[in-house]
Amino acid sequence: MRDPPAIELHGRPLGGGKVPHVCAPLVGRSREAVLEELRIVLSKGPDLVEWRVDGFEGIGSAAEVVRLAGELRQRAGPTPILFTRRSTHEGGEPIPIGEEAVIELYEAVCASRSVDLVDYELSQPAENMARLRDAARRSDVRLVASFHDFQRTPPQEALVERFQAAERSGADVAKVAVMARGLDDVLTLLGATLKARQALRIPIITMSMGPLGSLARMFGWVFGSSVTFAIGDAGSAPGQVPIEDVRTVVEVLRRALGDAP
Amino acid sequence: MRDPPAIELHGRPLGGGKVPHVCAPLVGRSREAVLEELRIVLSKGPDLVEWRVDGFEGIGSAAEVVRLAGELRQRAGPTPILFTRRSTHEGGEPIPIGEEAVIELYEAVCASRSVDLVDYELSQPAENMARLRDAARRSDVRLVASFHDFQRTPPQEALVERFQAAERSGADVAKVAVMARGLDDVLTLLGATLKARQALRIPIITMSMGPLGSLARMFGWVFGSSVTFAIGDAGSAPGQVPIEDVRTVVEVLRRALGDAP
Repeated sequence: MRDPPAIELHGRPLGGGKVPHVCAPLVGRSREAVLEELRIVLSKGPDLVEWRVDGFEGIGSAAEVVRLAGELRQRAGPTPILFTRRSTHEGGEPIPIGEEAVIELYEAVCASRSVDLVDYELSQPAENMARLRDAARRSDVRLVASFHDFQRTPPQEALVERFQAAERSGADVAKVAVMARGLDDVLTLLGATLKARQALRIPIITMSMGPLGSLARMFGWVFGSSVTFAIGDAGSAPGQVPIEDVRTVVEVLRRALGDAP
Repeated sequence: MRDPPAIELHGRPLGGGKVPHVCAPLVGRSREAVLEELRIVLSKGPDLVEWRVDGFEGIGSAAEVVRLAGELRQRAGPTPILFTRRSTHEGGEPIPIGEEAVIELYEAVCASRSVDLVDYELSQPAENMARLRDAARRSDVRLVASFHDFQRTPPQEALVERFQAAERSGADVAKVAVMARGLDDVLTLLGATLKARQALRIPIITMSMGPLGSLARMFGWVFGSSVTFAIGDAGSAPGQVPIEDVRTVVEVLRRALGDAP
């Protein structure tokens, strides 16, 4: 079995090249809460942490965000950081700033080089994605272009099209997360993952959300997803599984799949 | 999430109703080897054991087979026994007796009431299946009608048709095992499992074979398969996983799926 590709950061493969990379979200409201979450999460040894800045009460001030990003950077040591503002219509928290200010926030955070990757939604204006791509490249930050559907799982062809749109946008990584309302939805997502993995040159991140989606979070890597989001302290989306459980299942699968073609 | 149904034996659900039932095969050549295998396998606490009689050197003598079945029964205590002759064209060992003698062997084993289930192949003549069904009913033994393809995974509709043919044959359980040559084959098998689970009234057993198939052996129960075959001592088909590993993954999945719809 061919493993999904490792994500490259600063010329080196993330997590020493070990896939799936396990990513733990930070969703705290206050500076103290985020730092405490980081402390707990790091003790579980994730391959990267995602700061979900839409949950942060200080998001209205770019200076405050850049300052906390710097603190996270310092305390995270070698663990890479993914910086994400999730919009309300893709499952995020309401924030007091408009999209132009959001882009400026991303640009400031990239320029600070406190984070290693940034996630931006494909559903936002293309010119924003282009600006962000340039800002990320200037600072050796990787850009993840993401698509979320919290209501349902679109048909397989539509999902593959989303992956391709992410690649066309110039992103370094394509992410698709969709709600599983039935087990057939999980199979659709895994089938789309398999197809996208073959069709795209960039690494992909895929998951089903919701309790049934936990299946895809644990074995989606076998079908080509390079990253799985797992709970270090508090979850950020429905169906996330504790890091320890993901690691246990990955180890068993790796042993079982061993020399699979 | 609705669990697949437990298999009923003598009016009680197998394994206390806990699914998936984990089944460990016995494949030894000599009486001593089979008994030693049973000892090792029982220490892992499987929900049932399958005696693959086509591997047994004494298969030419019905009396010898019935005698060993009785010994297995005595030593297995409360653990149910599935009795299976797998033919060479469905992955079994060559045997020195013809199909009429095989049916008489099954009839003698049923009459001895030393086993709880018998497996017979759908590809054999329908009148044999009917004779075996009657013999099984007379002795309160459950009949598993099975289909194997060691070369490939047929399309989903063809697989569902195999399940339905098993139900039409009057079997108590329908089993389908097919070779996974790629990950798309695993998705096809799981999709067929989901459909068959909805279409059939009897419990089903499904699996993909080969290293990639180990995926379906570990989470096929989520899609509706009531039994998974796992290695207690020696495996009987490609892609089988140790009992301990199956149990570990099932536990994690059960926690993760918890209250899934």
